[in-house]
Amino acid sequence: MTSVAFIGLGHMGAPMAANLVNAGLTVRVFDLVPQAMKSLTDLGALSSSSACGAAAGADVVITMLPAGKHVRSLYLGDDNNKGLIDVVADGTLLIDCSTIDAQSAQQVAKSAAEKGLSFVDAPVSGGTAGAAAGTLTFICGGENGAFELAKPILGHMGANILHAGAAGAGQVAKICNNMLLSVLMVATSESLQMGIDHGLDPKVLSEIMKVSSGGNWTLDKYNPCPDVMPNVPSSNDYQGGFMVDLMVKDLGLSQEAALVSNSSTPMGALARSLYVNHARQGNGTRDFSSIFEQFTNSQQIKNKG
Amino acid sequence: MTSVAFIGLGHMGAPMAANLVNAGLTVRVFDLVPQAMKSLTDLGALSSSSACGAAAGADVVITMLPAGKHVRSLYLGDDNNKGLIDVVADGTLLIDCSTIDAQSAQQVAKSAAEKGLSFVDAPVSGGTAGAAAGTLTFICGGENGAFELAKPILGHMGANILHAGAAGAGQVAKICNNMLLSVLMVATSESLQMGIDHGLDPKVLSEIMKVSSGGNWTLDKYNPCPDVMPNVPSSNDYQGGFMVDLMVKDLGLSQEAALVSNSSTPMGALARSLYVNHARQGNGTRDFSSIFEQFTNSQQIKNKG
Amino acid sequence: MTSVAFIGLGHMGAPMAANLVNAGLTVRVFDLVPQAMKSLTDLGALSSSSACGAAAGADVVITMLPAGKHVRSLYLGDDNNKGLIDVVADGTLLIDCSTIDAQSAQQVAKSAAEKGLSFVDAPVSGGTAGAAAGTLTFICGGENGAFELAKPILGHMGANILHAGAAGAGQVAKICNNMLLSVLMVATSESLQMGIDHGLDPKVLSEIMKVSSGGNWTLDKYNPCPDVMPNVPSSNDYQGGFMVDLMVKDLGLSQEAALVSNSSTPMGALARSLYVNHARQGNGTRDFSSIFEQFTNSQQIKNKG
Amino acid sequence: MTSVAFIGLGHMGAPMAANLVNAGLTVRVFDLVPQAMKSLTDLGALSSSSACGAAAGADVVITMLPAGKHVRSLYLGDDNNKGLIDVVADGTLLIDCSTIDAQSAQQVAKSAAEKGLSFVDAPVSGGTAGAAAGTLTFICGGENGAFELAKPILGHMGANILHAGAAGAGQVAKICNNMLLSVLMVATSESLQMGIDHGLDPKVLSEIMKVSSGGNWTLDKYNPCPDVMPNVPSSNDYQGGFMVDLMVKDLGLSQEAALVSNSSTPMGALARSLYVNHARQGNGTRDFSSIFEQFTNSQQIKNKG
Repeated sequence: MTSVAFIGLGHMGAPMAANLVNAGLTVRVFDLVPQAMKSLTDLGALSSSSACGAAAGADVVITMLPAGKHVRSLYLGDDNNKGLIDVVADGTLLIDCSTIDAQSAQQVAKSAAEKGLSFVDAPVSGGTAGAAAGTLTFICGGENGAFELAKPILGHMGANILHAGAAGAGQVAKICNNMLLSVLMVATSESLQMGIDHGLDPKVLSEIMKVSSGGNWTLDKYNPCPDVMPNVPSSNDYQGGFMVDLMVKDLGLSQEAALVSNSSTPMGALARSLYVNHARQGNGTRDFSSIFEQFTNSQQIKNKG
Repeated sequence: MTSVAFIGLGHMGAPMAANLVNAGLTVRVFDLVPQAMKSLTDLGALSSSSACGAAAGADVVITMLPAGKHVRSLYLGDDNNKGLIDVVADGTLLIDCSTIDAQSAQQVAKSAAEKGLSFVDAPVSGGTAGAAAGTLTFICGGENGAFELAKPILGHMGANILHAGAAGAGQVAKICNNMLLSVLMVATSESLQMGIDHGLDPKVLSEIMKVSSGGNWTLDKYNPCPDVMPNVPSSNDYQGGFMVDLMVKDLGLSQEAALVSNSSTPMGALARSLYVNHARQGNGTRDFSSIFEQFTNSQQIKNKG
Repeated sequence: MTSVAFIGLGHMGAPMAANLVNAGLTVRVFDLVPQAMKSLTDLGALSSSSACGAAAGADVVITMLPAGKHVRSLYLGDDNNKGLIDVVADGTLLIDCSTIDAQSAQQVAKSAAEKGLSFVDAPVSGGTAGAAAGTLTFICGGENGAFELAKPILGHMGANILHAGAAGAGQVAKICNNMLLSVLMVATSESLQMGIDHGLDPKVLSEIMKVSSGGNWTLDKYNPCPDVMPNVPSSNDYQGGFMVDLMVKDLGLSQEAALVSNSSTPMGALARSLYVNHARQGNGTRDFSSIFEQFTNSQQIKNKG
Repeated sequence: MTSVAFIGLGHMGAPMAANLVNAGLTVRVFDLVPQAMKSLTDLGALSSSSACGAAAGADVVITMLPAGKHVRSLYLGDDNNKGLIDVVADGTLLIDCSTIDAQSAQQVAKSAAEKGLSFVDAPVSGGTAGAAAGTLTFICGGENGAFELAKPILGHMGANILHAGAAGAGQVAKICNNMLLSVLMVATSESLQMGIDHGLDPKVLSEIMKVSSGGNWTLDKYNPCPDVMPNVPSSNDYQGGFMVDLMVKDLGLSQEAALVSNSSTPMGALARSLYVNHARQGNGTRDFSSIFEQFTNSQQIKNKG
């Protein structure tokens, strides 16, 4: 039976690890915050006192960390600690599910390969709800063989396991997607508000654009205009969902990637500036569809309440 | 049997009128260019020597003209001519299928209403291919009653007959949609190119974003990157399809609308500037997905040939 | 002695007319709001009961109105009134100081020319302070001869009388300038805030950029960052100065002009969207340098008080 | 007499070092390309076989390198070489004139301080012409004492020696300035072209905006429209001056800085995208004012020749 080490039990990591436990795998967990391990050990996971301890005997190591620097120092080591790639057994499969810069992912993949280890970058989308339900999408980078090994493991946590290309390609594909998403959200918001400003009903306009050439994911699943769709953040005062601060982080990664490859991303760059303005105005913890409010008449909003 | 006057037989108007003839309606046509009537009379349409002559006894008048000024002067008259609303019989249904500014549509609708006539603004999308196949989408503005009357007539020329709201709403909804479309096209282009710049295969990246939150109409139907999809302009040197010059026109209408309603459309405004630059560089008659080339490395393009 | 009719006595028109009275000219004034004439008649101006009445015997007619439609209907007449060009004496010089669209200015100039009258479009910059002090800048369009005649009259109200070209050129030059100004203001704001975010003193950074290649009018005269310069709106809670709503109006005119000439103005278009957002957030009556606050951390601003 | 080590003799470094030699200082030079030292030794400089060799006994070390990674590895050492800070004598003043990211500058400054050494980041503006003429502007970061020591040395190579703040502040101020400059250039270009599109003479429009609120460095010194000013790149087919590729580099640094500080720079980000597009279209080695051509009608350009 496959034994998995899961390191990083935050809002995303904890429910992901829980799904592995529930699938019957042997899961050894670690988090810098000891309490974070409690809910997992209650489910039957084993705990460790260090990341290396958790990883030492595992068949598969999965990590879910905040940023590239954490991933680099965990896998490669730093002044104080050995890296995971120095302690895991031969043949261990390494899977990083963090959303980080592609360069860090490639650097870890390369160092892992030098030790004969397979590394897959597998950032996720789907949010905490998808993590709990086991319906995440994983966008993976790495060798074909490593991807095929990772696929059934990831399948316990997600519904779509996609292969974007070589090492780092999962990260690149994810930020390309999220950059595009941010533009869809802003552009759908401004289009809907312009319709409203001309007296159109946003529900009717949304239905029309959804079946026309303006159709996009935000109109299908995540309309930013309040009260057009039920059960989306815009109809719940923009609570829940995907935070503005996280979109700002992903847009930052996208612009970092654009600098590395000398790419021009006028729409993505503009979306980042608008989202940073929005965050600085105190909306960082609200859902990212709240960018819609940048285009409404605040007077109207105030009078609504 | 319903008799229809069809005025304006350009690239779109001619095949639209042909579908009405083929549906068995009595169609009287007029165009300022006499030769334009020939293909229609060959099919069985009747010709007229003037717009008013065509419209005089018709149950329904349909117009397909280049811009708001043409629509206004045709319906309302000018120094030299009476307007259509002065010559048509009581109860005639007026349908304008041109893509024009909403204000002109509203002005004509108002003058028509003062004469007791019903007017529907019904701009189309779907291009010349959709016009020929009778699969256009009509986005309509006008009273419910008028819309219900127009619907079966438009049904001979299109597959989707949508009602956006009161007079002018068809125009507003269409330019909201096309503004959004232009942003989808630019943002999808820059995202794909950034992926390519990082070594990703645009086919793979397109497949991933299509099923993720970046999903949008351009990825589904009209991928801007050459050789990702068959049978789209990008795989045919950007020939055919929807011309850059027409997108520039629609984006102009969208910005005019934004000025009227004091709306903020940062993405749409940026798309317009990028498309104008693209047109000025000599791409006006190429398909609008050729904006993709703004983001590629020209050196790569040159080396391809 | 030259007799002048001055029509339109708002915040700008009233002090401008006062300077003509103070210069010893015979000034006949009219405004739709009778009370607006009081301060002028107190100074020695004559009042009229209608615009045409004021203009009838004048050597020079000067108008200062809100928008193109007012200028067109006043000069050209409408359903209820004769136009000024129908009532003034032969040889009357017509000067419009309103900031309006170039097309309206050209239309009035053309109609005036058909009656043998000279028309100069002469929009101003310098604000109410410049109007009071007689230090306005006039940017004029019209024939050389007309400009030479207008120059000494305008010289009583302004310090710089510039000739931009033929009819309408004054309006075009003014909106080109104001569009550029809006971009200078936004770009200077974002550059200063980025420096502040990195710990730099905005006074020091302003001094450095002022003498470097980033030097521009806003750094010289109108720094948007509070407490960098004395006696500017940013150091007075953004009160006074040039209102956001007026910048939105001018940016609207600039985008209208860009549509007419099919010009690409990515920076000006973006500035308009940012200013519209800013106005919609309740800042319409504050000085336009308050756009700086779009880039600051609102938390910081609140904690300052 | 002060002895100076000068490391990095490219297009900028060579003439800068020459001015130090001409000022009578003892200058020891090093460059990875031995031939690059020839022109300096001809002038009287001493050559070294390594950077550390040049720096070993110097009172002042000056470096002029392409990017942050070169500066870090030179000062801090790497796997193969000791760093300069490990070999220089106590009390040596370290001055880096490269344009690099602020973080690298701060990192070097911190490591230098730990060894008791003073480090000044002193990026320059003024181009190769300014380097030759000794009229560069230096924008410096570092402690007051270090800045005062650096000032007379830099005074042999430049006309303006400015102090922006603590370590790294020179780099931040320079990229804030250059980001602002790029926006001035784009916005001035689009404003001038819009005027031209309306029939205005760009010389007249430039004169008007120069003395109005649109006034900025590009109108004063570097007009982007051909044949408005003599002796600028735009009047010489955009040859010479400051290359598009270098502006792309500086805009990249500005966006990197914006990511570090979570700043919003919509104008700077848009300028970067436009400049990257321009470079990718084959304009990388032309002067950065050639961005003007993005806004002209290419047909007009072609017809000019």
